[in-house]
Amino acid sequence: MILDKINKPNDIKNIDPNEYPILASEIRKFLIEKISKTGGHLSSNLGVVELTMALHLSFNLPKDKIIWDVGHQSYTHKLLTGRKEGFDSLRTFGGMSGFPKRCESDYDAFDTGHSSTSVSAGLGIATARDILKKRFKVVSVIGDGSITGGMAYEAFNNASKIKGNFIIVLNDNEMSIAPNVGAISDLLNDFRVSDRYKDLKERIARNISHLPDGRRIAKKIKQVKDNLKGRLMPGQIVNSLGIDYFGPIDGHDIQKMIKTFRLAKQIKGPVVVHVLTKKGKGYAHAEEYPDSYHGVSPFDLETGKAVGKSDRPSYAGVFSKKICELAGNNEKIVGITAAMPDGVGLKEFSARFPNRYFDVGIAEAHATTFAAGLAVTGLIPVFAVYSSFLQRGYDQILHDVCIQNLKVIFAIDHAGLVGNDGETHQGIFDISYLSSIPGMTVLAPKNGKELEACLEYAVNEAQGPIALRYPSGTASDFLSDRMEPVCYGKAEVLYKEKDICLLAVGRMTETAAAVRDMLKEQGYKVSLINMRFVKPFDTELLKKLSKDHKLFVTIEENVARGGFGEAVAAFAQGNLMKTAVLSIALPDKYIEHGNVKLLWKETGIDPDSVFKRIVDCAKENGVKNA
Amino acid sequence: MILDKINKPNDIKNIDPNEYPILASEIRKFLIEKISKTGGHLSSNLGVVELTMALHLSFNLPKDKIIWDVGHQSYTHKLLTGRKEGFDSLRTFGGMSGFPKRCESDYDAFDTGHSSTSVSAGLGIATARDILKKRFKVVSVIGDGSITGGMAYEAFNNASKIKGNFIIVLNDNEMSIAPNVGAISDLLNDFRVSDRYKDLKERIARNISHLPDGRRIAKKIKQVKDNLKGRLMPGQIVNSLGIDYFGPIDGHDIQKMIKTFRLAKQIKGPVVVHVLTKKGKGYAHAEEYPDSYHGVSPFDLETGKAVGKSDRPSYAGVFSKKICELAGNNEKIVGITAAMPDGVGLKEFSARFPNRYFDVGIAEAHATTFAAGLAVTGLIPVFAVYSSFLQRGYDQILHDVCIQNLKVIFAIDHAGLVGNDGETHQGIFDISYLSSIPGMTVLAPKNGKELEACLEYAVNEAQGPIALRYPSGTASDFLSDRMEPVCYGKAEVLYKEKDICLLAVGRMTETAAAVRDMLKEQGYKVSLINMRFVKPFDTELLKKLSKDHKLFVTIEENVARGGFGEAVAAFAQGNLMKTAVLSIALPDKYIEHGNVKLLWKETGIDPDSVFKRIVDCAKENGVKNA
Repeated sequence: MILDKINKPNDIKNIDPNEYPILASEIRKFLIEKISKTGGHLSSNLGVVELTMALHLSFNLPKDKIIWDVGHQSYTHKLLTGRKEGFDSLRTFGGMSGFPKRCESDYDAFDTGHSSTSVSAGLGIATARDILKKRFKVVSVIGDGSITGGMAYEAFNNASKIKGNFIIVLNDNEMSIAPNVGAISDLLNDFRVSDRYKDLKERIARNISHLPDGRRIAKKIKQVKDNLKGRLMPGQIVNSLGIDYFGPIDGHDIQKMIKTFRLAKQIKGPVVVHVLTKKGKGYAHAEEYPDSYHGVSPFDLETGKAVGKSDRPSYAGVFSKKICELAGNNEKIVGITAAMPDGVGLKEFSARFPNRYFDVGIAEAHATTFAAGLAVTGLIPVFAVYSSFLQRGYDQILHDVCIQNLKVIFAIDHAGLVGNDGETHQGIFDISYLSSIPGMTVLAPKNGKELEACLEYAVNEAQGPIALRYPSGTASDFLSDRMEPVCYGKAEVLYKEKDICLLAVGRMTETAAAVRDMLKEQGYKVSLINMRFVKPFDTELLKKLSKDHKLFVTIEENVARGGFGEAVAAFAQGNLMKTAVLSIALPDKYIEHGNVKLLWKETGIDPDSVFKRIVDCAKENGVKNA
Repeated sequence: MILDKINKPNDIKNIDPNEYPILASEIRKFLIEKISKTGGHLSSNLGVVELTMALHLSFNLPKDKIIWDVGHQSYTHKLLTGRKEGFDSLRTFGGMSGFPKRCESDYDAFDTGHSSTSVSAGLGIATARDILKKRFKVVSVIGDGSITGGMAYEAFNNASKIKGNFIIVLNDNEMSIAPNVGAISDLLNDFRVSDRYKDLKERIARNISHLPDGRRIAKKIKQVKDNLKGRLMPGQIVNSLGIDYFGPIDGHDIQKMIKTFRLAKQIKGPVVVHVLTKKGKGYAHAEEYPDSYHGVSPFDLETGKAVGKSDRPSYAGVFSKKICELAGNNEKIVGITAAMPDGVGLKEFSARFPNRYFDVGIAEAHATTFAAGLAVTGLIPVFAVYSSFLQRGYDQILHDVCIQNLKVIFAIDHAGLVGNDGETHQGIFDISYLSSIPGMTVLAPKNGKELEACLEYAVNEAQGPIALRYPSGTASDFLSDRMEPVCYGKAEVLYKEKDICLLAVGRMTETAAAVRDMLKEQGYKVSLINMRFVKPFDTELLKKLSKDHKLFVTIEENVARGGFGEAVAAFAQGNLMKTAVLSIALPDKYIEHGNVKLLWKETGIDPDSVFKRIVDCAKENGVKNA
C-alpha cells in the first residue's frame, strides 16, 4: 500500500510520481470504506482526491495556506496531513471534524462550513501577508456551486485589486449539491460543449495565411483573438474583472495541475485556475447519483444503500408531502430553495409544480427578497431552508419582508442541534435572530403531525411573515394523537396541574414530557405546555398559569441569549409575577459535532440534566413534592 | 411654471415634449430649495430627474411597477405622483418619507432603503406576474454602486432565466456614495474613455476591404466582432449572463430614453438599459462635491454650507481622529469600509494609511470575512459600518469571525435611533443580533471620550471579536470628566445609593442621569450605572447591587426582544434575586422617520416617559421615596 507511506504532513512529497494514480485510488478506497461506516460527505471528497494531492505537492504547507470553501471536501487534505486515524471517529463527539478546523491542525488555514466564504478569507490572508511583508502563497479552493453565492462575487470583485499573488482554484464539478441553476453554470457548460476559441483561431488562420497582406492582417487579428481569448473562457466574468485565468484543466490529471500551479504561482496578482472534476469519482453509486451521496449516513459498500436508517419519514419528508398537498389545492403557493431541493424536501414539489418552483443557487439573500417580491404581488412563497443558512438572509428578512409585513413562509429545517456537521451547521440561533424582528411570527411544532398543521395554518391563515422551525432527522410521532387546532399566538396545554409548569418549545416538548414523568415520580405536581408559538407567545395563558404555579421552566433548543426563556423571564418581571422562571437553553458557546442525543447531554438539555436542574430550582424556590 | 401643471400622478403625460427640459429644470430648482430647508438626499435625486421623467412617460403607473434600489433617489418620482406638498414635511415625524413606501402611495411598488435589493424584488414581482398571467411591466432601477453588492449579482444570475419582460435600469452615475472601488467600476470607466469596440471595427474594416478575398474574410471577422460586441460593453458581465443590453445612453436625454424604453419593453426576458447620469446635476456645489451632498442637513442655497449644524465633532469624527492616532502607533491596524469612508469616519485614515485602508464596495458580507482573513494572519482589522448595514454581515460575524474567536473590531456607527432616514436605517437591532453570538463582546460608550477609550481598549487589550456601538450625530460630552478605565466586562458606577438602580447602555446614560435627577427630586434614592459592556455585562456588580436595591431599571436604545434588559431579567431570575427588573427599551415594531428626540418620546424612552414608568413601577414594587 502506498497509502501506508502517508503518515504525516508532506509525506506525499516522497512518493514516486508514477505512484500518484495508485495512491489516488487507495485514498478513494480508504474514504469510501471509512465513510460507509461513519457517514459523512462522500461525493465532494471523491471528486477532489487528485486536486488535493496536486495542491499538497505544489505548495509548501503549512507555510502556504489553502482555504477550502464550505470545507466538506477536505477529507483528502486531512488524510495527507497526519489525520488518517481520525477517520475512525469522523464527525463523532470528540472525534475529527468533517470540516477544516484550525484548532484541529496547523494545516487547516481557516475554518469553513457555509458556502462562498473562501475567496474573502483568502484575500484577507493574502492582503495581510503583503502588508506584513511575509512570503507565502494563498490558495482559495471554491466550487462552481459556491460561486452562485453573492459573497463570492463581492470577493472576486475585490480580489481583482490585489498586487501580490493570490490563487483561486475553481473546482468545477458540474454540480454543487444540486444541479446548478442560473447563468453561471450555463457559462461553464457552454464552454464544455463548444471550444469556440480554438475553432475560431484555426478558421481565421487558414483563411488569412496565404493572402498578400496576410501577415499584417494576421497581426491585427491577433489583437482581436487575444481580446476574445479573455472573453470566451468560462472565466469570462473572471477575466472581465481583470483576474488572470488558467484552464480549464483536467482535475484528475495530477501532473497537469502541478504544472499549472507552477505557472499560477508566478502571477503577480489574482489568478484563477479552473479545474474540472467529477463528483463521486471512483464509486459507481456516487458517480451515478452524486446528489444522493452528498452527505451520507453509514451505508452498505456493495449496494450503496443506507444502513440503520429509520423507515419513518424525516421532518423534511413530512414537509415535502404536505407542501405538495397544499400546492395542489392552492395555485398561489411557490416553493423556493437555495440549492438544496433534496435536503429541504422540495424535490417532489419541483417535479409536480415546475412553474412554481425556484432553485436560486446558494443565494439565501436573494431568495428572501425574491420571495418578498412574489408576496407583494399576491403569491404565497415558501422558502424552505436550513436554519444556519438562513442566517445569510437576516437583513433581507428584516428589511425586505418584515417592514412591509409580507406573507413569506420560512420553512426552517435543521433547527436545533443537527449533530455531525458541528458548529457551523447547528441551527441554534434562529429563535434569537427571528424573534427580535418586529412583525415576525415564529412557530415550533412538537412533532411531524403538528408540522403539517402549522404549515397549513401558515398557508391558509397567517397574515404576515411566518417562520416554522423544525429539526433535522426523523419526524417524531410523540403525542401524535393530541392536537389542538393551531390558533394565532396560542399554546397547547398538554397537562394542567400546578406548582411546576414546563413551557416547551418544538421537539423539546418530548423531552419535557419525559422530565415531567420523572418529576411526577418524585411527587411533584407538574403542568406541561407545548408553546407552539415562540413569537408571539401565549402571554394570556402564562398570566393564568402564574396564579397556581411557583415555577415556570422554559425548555428550548436555542442559545439562551435572545431566546424564548429570556423573553419569558422579562415578561414575568414586567408583570410582577411571583412565579420564578428557570430557563433551560443552550449555553453561550458554539457546539461541536457529535450525536444529537449526546450533545443534549453535554449541553444540559437532556431529560436527566433538566430534571436535576428543576429539582434544585424547585427546592430553592420552596416548591414542595408531596 | 410647468411644474404647476404637475399635481397628480401621470400629469406629466399631458406636458408638451418641448417643455420637458424646462420641467426638469424646475424640478431641480424645487428639490434644491426644499432640501435646503429640510435636509435630505440631494446629489442622487438631482441625477435622476430626467430618468424619472422618462420612466413616468414610458410606463403606465401604477399598473407597471418601478422598484428604486436604495430608494434615496425617489424624490422626483414622489413629485410626479401627487406628493408635491409632502416635501415641506420631508423626513419629519408624520411627514413624507425619504424612501419609497407602499403605505405612502400606490405608486411605490416596493419599500427600499438598503442597497442591492431591487433586482431580487423586481424579479419576484415579474415572476409572480407571469405565474398569475397578469400583464404589466416591471422596472428595477439600480445604481452602479449597488451592483457592487453580492445580492445584486445573485439576482442578475437568477434574472437571466425569466421568460417574461423584466427591465433593469442601470443608473450609472460614475459614483455611488463614495467613488466606486473594484473591477466593476473600472469596467464602466474603461468604457467611457476608450470606445474600444468602434475603434477596432474601423481599423479592421480599413485593412480588409481592399483585399482579394476581402469579403469572405470580412464575414468571418464579423462573427468575431459580433462576439466582441457582447463582450466589450459595460454589460460585459450582463451579457455573459445572457441578459439583453441597451446602452449606454445619456440619462439626461429624455427622448432617447423614451425611445430605448420602448424597445426594451419588446424584449422577451430580462434586459438591461444602461443610462449615464451625473450626480448632483444642476447644483454647482453638488456637482463638484457629490459625495458631500449625498445626504445633507439643511444648507444655505448660495454658499451650499450647512446651517444650524453643531461645531462639535460627531461620533464618527471622534472615531476618525482616534483610529488615526492609534494606527499611527500600530502598523497592524487596518481600516475597512463598505463604500462609506465619509459616513463612518475613515476618510482621513484612507489618506494617511492608504496601504492599510480598504473600501470594499457595498459588500458587508465580504468585508466581514475579509476582516477575518486579516485577523487570522495577525493584523487588527477595524470594520467601521452603520448598525443597520452590518445586518448584512450577520452570518459572517457568526460563522467566520466568532467561531474562530478572531479579533475583528466592529466600529458600529448609527447605533440606536438615527432619525430622518426611518425604518430601514434605525440601528436598533444590533444589541440583539450581536449578543446572541457566542464569543462576541459588545460595548456601548456613554460619550465621545469613552468611545476613544473603548477603541483604545479594543485595539490594545481585546482578545477576540469586539463591537463598539455608538450613535449618529454630535458626540456627547456628558460627564466627560468622569471616566473609569475600561476593564473587561466591568461597568462604571456613576452614583451609588440604594433602592433604585438605573442600568444604562450607551447614550441612554445621559437620559438616565436626567431621570435620576427627577427621581431624586421626588425623594428616591437612586444609583446610576453606565454598563459600558453590554456583553458580557457586569454580573458581579449586579449581584452586589441586588443586595440593597429593590428595583433595577435597564435603559437601552434597542428593541426589547433579545436586548440587554431581557438578559438582565433572565439573570435576575436565574439568580433568585429579590430585585425587580424594569426593562426600558424600544417596542417590538419598526420606528419611522423623524427627529431623534421626538422618536424617543414617541417610543417612551425620553426622560419624562422613563421617569413616569419608574415611579409607577417603584410603587408597585413597594419602593418608597423619603
